[in-house]
Amino acid sequence: MTEPYGMDPTYRQRTVELLQSQLSNLIDLALMGKQAHWNLRGPEFRAIHLQLDEIVADLRLHSDEVAERILTLGDPADGRAGTVSAQSSLPAFPEGYLPALGAAKELADRMDLAVRKMRGAIGQLGELDPISEDLAIGISASVEKHQWMLRALTEK
Amino acid sequence: MTEPYGMDPTYRQRTVELLQSQLSNLIDLALMGKQAHWNLRGPEFRAIHLQLDEIVADLRLHSDEVAERILTLGDPADGRAGTVSAQSSLPAFPEGYLPALGAAKELADRMDLAVRKMRGAIGQLGELDPISEDLAIGISASVEKHQWMLRALTEK
Amino acid sequence: MTEPYGMDPTYRQRTVELLQSQLSNLIDLALMGKQAHWNLRGPEFRAIHLQLDEIVADLRLHSDEVAERILTLGDPADGRAGTVSAQSSLPAFPEGYLPALGAAKELADRMDLAVRKMRGAIGQLGELDPISEDLAIGISASVEKHQWMLRALTEK
Amino acid sequence: MTEPYGMDPTYRQRTVELLQSQLSNLIDLALMGKQAHWNLRGPEFRAIHLQLDEIVADLRLHSDEVAERILTLGDPADGRAGTVSAQSSLPAFPEGYLPALGAAKELADRMDLAVRKMRGAIGQLGELDPISEDLAIGISASVEKHQWMLRALTEK
Amino acid sequence: MTEPYGMDPTYRQRTVELLQSQLSNLIDLALMGKQAHWNLRGPEFRAIHLQLDEIVADLRLHSDEVAERILTLGDPADGRAGTVSAQSSLPAFPEGYLPALGAAKELADRMDLAVRKMRGAIGQLGELDPISEDLAIGISASVEKHQWMLRALTEK
Amino acid sequence: MTEPYGMDPTYRQRTVELLQSQLSNLIDLALMGKQAHWNLRGPEFRAIHLQLDEIVADLRLHSDEVAERILTLGDPADGRAGTVSAQSSLPAFPEGYLPALGAAKELADRMDLAVRKMRGAIGQLGELDPISEDLAIGISASVEKHQWMLRALTEK
Amino acid sequence: MTEPYGMDPTYRQRTVELLQSQLSNLIDLALMGKQAHWNLRGPEFRAIHLQLDEIVADLRLHSDEVAERILTLGDPADGRAGTVSAQSSLPAFPEGYLPALGAAKELADRMDLAVRKMRGAIGQLGELDPISEDLAIGISASVEKHQWMLRALTEK
Amino acid sequence: MTEPYGMDPTYRQRTVELLQSQLSNLIDLALMGKQAHWNLRGPEFRAIHLQLDEIVADLRLHSDEVAERILTLGDPADGRAGTVSAQSSLPAFPEGYLPALGAAKELADRMDLAVRKMRGAIGQLGELDPISEDLAIGISASVEKHQWMLRALTEK
Amino acid sequence: MTEPYGMDPTYRQRTVELLQSQLSNLIDLALMGKQAHWNLRGPEFRAIHLQLDEIVADLRLHSDEVAERILTLGDPADGRAGTVSAQSSLPAFPEGYLPALGAAKELADRMDLAVRKMRGAIGQLGELDPISEDLAIGISASVEKHQWMLRALTEK
Amino acid sequence: MTEPYGMDPTYRQRTVELLQSQLSNLIDLALMGKQAHWNLRGPEFRAIHLQLDEIVADLRLHSDEVAERILTLGDPADGRAGTVSAQSSLPAFPEGYLPALGAAKELADRMDLAVRKMRGAIGQLGELDPISEDLAIGISASVEKHQWMLRALTEK
Amino acid sequence: MTEPYGMDPTYRQRTVELLQSQLSNLIDLALMGKQAHWNLRGPEFRAIHLQLDEIVADLRLHSDEVAERILTLGDPADGRAGTVSAQSSLPAFPEGYLPALGAAKELADRMDLAVRKMRGAIGQLGELDPISEDLAIGISASVEKHQWMLRALTEK
Amino acid sequence: MTEPYGMDPTYRQRTVELLQSQLSNLIDLALMGKQAHWNLRGPEFRAIHLQLDEIVADLRLHSDEVAERILTLGDPADGRAGTVSAQSSLPAFPEGYLPALGAAKELADRMDLAVRKMRGAIGQLGELDPISEDLAIGISASVEKHQWMLRALTEK
Repeated sequence: MTEPYGMDPTYRQRTVELLQSQLSNLIDLALMGKQAHWNLRGPEFRAIHLQLDEIVADLRLHSDEVAERILTLGDPADGRAGTVSAQSSLPAFPEGYLPALGAAKELADRMDLAVRKMRGAIGQLGELDPISEDLAIGISASVEKHQWMLRALTEK
Repeated sequence: MTEPYGMDPTYRQRTVELLQSQLSNLIDLALMGKQAHWNLRGPEFRAIHLQLDEIVADLRLHSDEVAERILTLGDPADGRAGTVSAQSSLPAFPEGYLPALGAAKELADRMDLAVRKMRGAIGQLGELDPISEDLAIGISASVEKHQWMLRALTEK
Repeated sequence: MTEPYGMDPTYRQRTVELLQSQLSNLIDLALMGKQAHWNLRGPEFRAIHLQLDEIVADLRLHSDEVAERILTLGDPADGRAGTVSAQSSLPAFPEGYLPALGAAKELADRMDLAVRKMRGAIGQLGELDPISEDLAIGISASVEKHQWMLRALTEK
Repeated sequence: MTEPYGMDPTYRQRTVELLQSQLSNLIDLALMGKQAHWNLRGPEFRAIHLQLDEIVADLRLHSDEVAERILTLGDPADGRAGTVSAQSSLPAFPEGYLPALGAAKELADRMDLAVRKMRGAIGQLGELDPISEDLAIGISASVEKHQWMLRALTEK
Repeated sequence: MTEPYGMDPTYRQRTVELLQSQLSNLIDLALMGKQAHWNLRGPEFRAIHLQLDEIVADLRLHSDEVAERILTLGDPADGRAGTVSAQSSLPAFPEGYLPALGAAKELADRMDLAVRKMRGAIGQLGELDPISEDLAIGISASVEKHQWMLRALTEK
Repeated sequence: MTEPYGMDPTYRQRTVELLQSQLSNLIDLALMGKQAHWNLRGPEFRAIHLQLDEIVADLRLHSDEVAERILTLGDPADGRAGTVSAQSSLPAFPEGYLPALGAAKELADRMDLAVRKMRGAIGQLGELDPISEDLAIGISASVEKHQWMLRALTEK
Repeated sequence: MTEPYGMDPTYRQRTVELLQSQLSNLIDLALMGKQAHWNLRGPEFRAIHLQLDEIVADLRLHSDEVAERILTLGDPADGRAGTVSAQSSLPAFPEGYLPALGAAKELADRMDLAVRKMRGAIGQLGELDPISEDLAIGISASVEKHQWMLRALTEK
Repeated sequence: MTEPYGMDPTYRQRTVELLQSQLSNLIDLALMGKQAHWNLRGPEFRAIHLQLDEIVADLRLHSDEVAERILTLGDPADGRAGTVSAQSSLPAFPEGYLPALGAAKELADRMDLAVRKMRGAIGQLGELDPISEDLAIGISASVEKHQWMLRALTEK
Repeated sequence: MTEPYGMDPTYRQRTVELLQSQLSNLIDLALMGKQAHWNLRGPEFRAIHLQLDEIVADLRLHSDEVAERILTLGDPADGRAGTVSAQSSLPAFPEGYLPALGAAKELADRMDLAVRKMRGAIGQLGELDPISEDLAIGISASVEKHQWMLRALTEK
Repeated sequence: MTEPYGMDPTYRQRTVELLQSQLSNLIDLALMGKQAHWNLRGPEFRAIHLQLDEIVADLRLHSDEVAERILTLGDPADGRAGTVSAQSSLPAFPEGYLPALGAAKELADRMDLAVRKMRGAIGQLGELDPISEDLAIGISASVEKHQWMLRALTEK
Repeated sequence: MTEPYGMDPTYRQRTVELLQSQLSNLIDLALMGKQAHWNLRGPEFRAIHLQLDEIVADLRLHSDEVAERILTLGDPADGRAGTVSAQSSLPAFPEGYLPALGAAKELADRMDLAVRKMRGAIGQLGELDPISEDLAIGISASVEKHQWMLRALTEK
Repeated sequence: MTEPYGMDPTYRQRTVELLQSQLSNLIDLALMGKQAHWNLRGPEFRAIHLQLDEIVADLRLHSDEVAERILTLGDPADGRAGTVSAQSSLPAFPEGYLPALGAAKELADRMDLAVRKMRGAIGQLGELDPISEDLAIGISASVEKHQWMLRALTEK
């Protein structure tokens, strides 16, 4: 197979690598979002329980977008549990029950880390592939907005 | 906290353990379903690509039902990537590109294994908690039906 | 092909036979429901005409569920006109015009018979396959409820 | 009852007979469509499984239209299993598992036969009742289109 | 303005006249349907009250189709109260309360008359304008079907 | 039958009379709205053609509300073509083609007249039946708003 | 807390009392509507069974509106089973099976009584709080309309 | 009337009694849910106000299912206010304003009691009528899940 | 232009003035609602953030209703930023971040003031124009209900 | 392949030719409709811009119907840009900006030409294939109606 | 609080300032759009009245996006009436009635100015924050498209 | 007319030229997509037939976006059949029947060429107009994704 869309092979390869590492973070975040959605407790249970499900829905959508972008660029994607565990750059989510606001803060902190990673990738993708850069900007915008709405719960 | 719904503490504990191990399998299957959905190739790409997304949607629904049943019974659930990797009883899904029918077969084989595990749990849950038994029967019915529709692709 | 889901071959075979005989009854009932829906007359025409279409819709859904359960268990299903005619355990529906309440009663009587048959199968399926038992319970619940709503038209 | 809509009694009677024989064919085709939908196997399983359900949905709609047209013309319709078995002009559908493309071909052949019969009726209905002729033309258009989409699967 | 679509002026004129007289009948029928919908009483009130509203909805749709066909053919349409009163060929609907089945019969009788008129027009439109003929066939099919469902209420 | 809801018989009777005369006006307006909808021409054809259909939809809804209020108060309503012709207080709508803005003005003028009549009734209904007064206020609000949006087309 | 919206405390208090007694009646009516919906029998079963569910849906909506109006005015509402039993001004609904038309009449009679009570409250609310008066008028309009459609079943 | 579905009369009678006592509890819980929905106050007002309405919607659905199951089994159901007051096994809900979390706890405690009662019935229904047992399991699963989501608000 | 609907010119003019001042208040409230929706923080962020958007949606709807009522009465409306700033009778909303409950209280206080103003207008509109009075009552009912649901967050 | 549906080969061939030439005209008209939709200007811009998109949607639907009818009859269809350019019988649409009413007239004129062509085909299809004749009548009815609504914009 | 997402504090601050000034313009434009929507008159009233409401809906959406982006970046937003009046860079919209095309032109001119301002910000945001740049590009694209569709009304 | 949005006239002109050449390619691709949708045959007929219709829907959307962007920039667009034929840079699509996988490959190859062209334009648009650049990136992302899903059908 020749390179799709006449892309430079090196650029294409580097783009795929950047996207693959975002994919692991996004799947990891989605699993953490569900973990928080189930195990939180306290007066804010209901509102944050629902908020977390909206976040998970968007994170799953974004991981699908990133994986399919990798395929579009001509390589397979990897979103298996083992790969996510090994490749994610995010600290593990605490196990067991969590107070609702604490759960929000734990997830918000990890989303902030994921955004920093994504913004780093955006800086490189502008050179490599404007389509992938635009995708990463759109995902960062979405994750940042959800992060604000979690952050707002614990700020004063 | 006293036991919810007047349940026997030992029965409640054993029920939670059985459900937690199903949870890991269901999340693992959902991640494998997406892996197949992305990386399959060949003349049947489109039909099976769509079929896999319906399977993933149901698997995600079922893992949510199981996790929330654990919480309802009074314990936290664990669906984190590391836990899934460590606790799933299913063999890892192959990485990289897969021919469409091969991807279907790989997933169908793992769904058959998960059903055997689930049917084993059903046999015990009937004694422990009829509500959880009924949930497990419903999930097994759904996974078995999807398994047939994958299996039918490669049988003659 | 090995047995799916590790089932005992004898149990699997007996389950399929029980389901196949319900399938013929359900398809027969659905054809009778349409027959009544078309040919009834009298002051209650409109209300019962609509009621019968809801019954037919559910009966068609149930016959689909039973047939696909047979396939899931690893055997072909048979819902051809000739098979239904030969295998149904229900008396033939009267031909030609029917007074509305009489049509309701004719169908309700046949639904009562089909439920008795289904309840007999439920008694056996509990031993053979809990997934199929649960399906049969769900279908019987649905047919019994519709039967009541027809029966209520002619009871005093 | 006088003849509805001032129709000639002989024309009305002949129209009903032509429609009744189409009714048996259409119900028979719908049962065959479901039979194929359940029992097909092979790489094209999923796409054709779904295609067959759309065909069945249309065939059921058309049999309803024909039966209600008979009632509108002042006679009862007959769509019972025994009548369909006896009156259908189509060869029986094969039992058991079928390869997906073979199932498509079996059904397409029977649909071609049903269309030939329907076109014969159209030729006569133009003289007898333009409303029924128009209905038959609409149904033939629908069955022919579905027949093409099955036929296209096996043509080269 | 030259004749639209290259139609023969005499044919066009005669078509418009045939359609205009159907328009008055259809609007009259719709007003009668509402009159019956409001004033009926008795055990069948609810079922027939709803049935009549579906009939009125279709009659209004058909009068709109006929009027816009007249405009399409290049003449104005007339659906004013005075014109309907003067031009309708149907006997006036009885005033005041009506027993439900009686109301159904009064309307069914007038629908039968309207269909006879419409079928007379169909016979002529085949020569004049096949598009208008097809419209009239479609409307007659609809009115005839509704007429059957009213007629079925009082037949035995 | 005793008076419903303990109403004073004279008040009830007077209320019904006031509502019946509004009914004739509302049906007449709806027929005029359709007449305009069909026969208008000119650069504003499309926008006003659609606007008139929304007006007609509301007028039909209002005539239904008024007629059913009469029935609720215990008398039959009369919305037959002949009654509307005889009882409406509005001048006849012009026949044939109309320039679009002219059609809007013709209808707006008649709606203004109908509102004046309705407002006169509102003044009396406050004493007779507050439920009917509230209905009339709601209908007048709706007709006045539509009248403004027609009026705005020709004002400068 | 000062009085909301600058209302006179005595007026506010009297308004709440009038609304609370309507609340008990509306909840009682809704429970009666369900009682009738379940236990009716006879040829009109289906049509009235559905009609009663629409009535119950509106009655539940109205009890919610009244209760939330009480809260809006600054007092708690009371809709508990014991309060409804003690405070409702309506005679108890008969237990056990009911012929369909008899069930309709039993409920219609109690709705007539509830409307008389509501109309009495409307007369006083006009002085006390125009917002609550308008709510009561809207609810009475709705209950009266449903009452007519039940009444119409048994009137001749 | 002979026993429906060939049931043993004693079993049928005992099933109905078990279901009737669940019916009173479910209606009582739904009225309590609305009471809490209206009268709660405090920072969690909005989230719990909405949560309670979802609980009430499910409780109403379940009481409908139970009542219609009683009718299906051939006896009338009783859901009148007086019967609910007298027959419910749940302690009365507190009157007046409630702090939001306190309202959640009051209802959660009564739901726990209702589930214990329902689980007791499930234990007996398995012998009496598998269809009713399955219904009770489904309702208990739903009530238990809602109970968890209330309980989670006040647990730490 | 003569006065629309035969209104007295002085009454019409006074009605417009009363409505215009409500319009400024309603637009001001909607802008404040958005201000609160964006800038609130704390544990109740999510629930109140969503609640405020529902309030804003209703306020925008009401300002549209009032403005279009002014146009219907024959005068232009004014909803420009400068006019709102100058004409609103409400104190400015605080800038910057707000604790969630504080934001709710700030808006609730201003809604209480707006309702007092609206109720004053209602008192006058009854004499001037019953249609506008009814509109103002409906808007006050809506604003009062939303005000309660904000008030309930901070009351004990 | 034998002829589908037992058609005469010469008739089938002639039908396909007639349909293929309509296909080119319909695709050409749809492209012209978009061209007008984009480039029109003037006071009627918005209303006609939207009207043209509805016309294009129907034209695309009709070209799909015609192409799939050709396939159903057993021949390939040709809707490529080059074929459309070469085979369309319609004069080219003017390039660049167009005044709104002028754009409407340009398209209406071409639609009138296309209808004349279609009506010519209808005359022949009646002999060749009644299914294709009915399709052509339905398409002509649709195009004629849209043509009237464009024509009405510029007629007086 | 540390800077979110590891942004440079100066860049973050400058981004917020650029967004805040767009926010005032967007809210101002939305209020102007409503002002035009209400007060326009003339033959194009209806089409432009509807067009303006679509523009307002998008402008409100965009102002929400910008405000929430400011919050996401860690600062409060300001959309109060006084701030909008003071901070908007757009000339005031004319008061009172406006001819429809004149209203369109007044708004189009102000949208052109707002776009120029937004494009200036886009030039700077590329350096400061690619997420905010992308948001501003999306909003400008939307406003420019609406501006064209207003502009097209008055161009020739 | 001055340049919209203060754009540099040369930049604006160059942007329009780049967009116009994409427009021809996109319309050409959409016509090819339909051509393939109709004429493909073989075992994958159904899945690819549906896939192609989704591609065509997106291509039509994108051609509309590009054309309206040209208008927004102040020039007319050209999407007429002759222009498309002459201006498209893509090789003609083969006529007649095509094997399903072959049809997919023919279209995928042309989509790859169109993407290369679009990516060339993106490189230039970044300098000329960021709004148009963003549009082109979004369209390329969509076309590339569809191209992958066609390509995946024939890769191994």
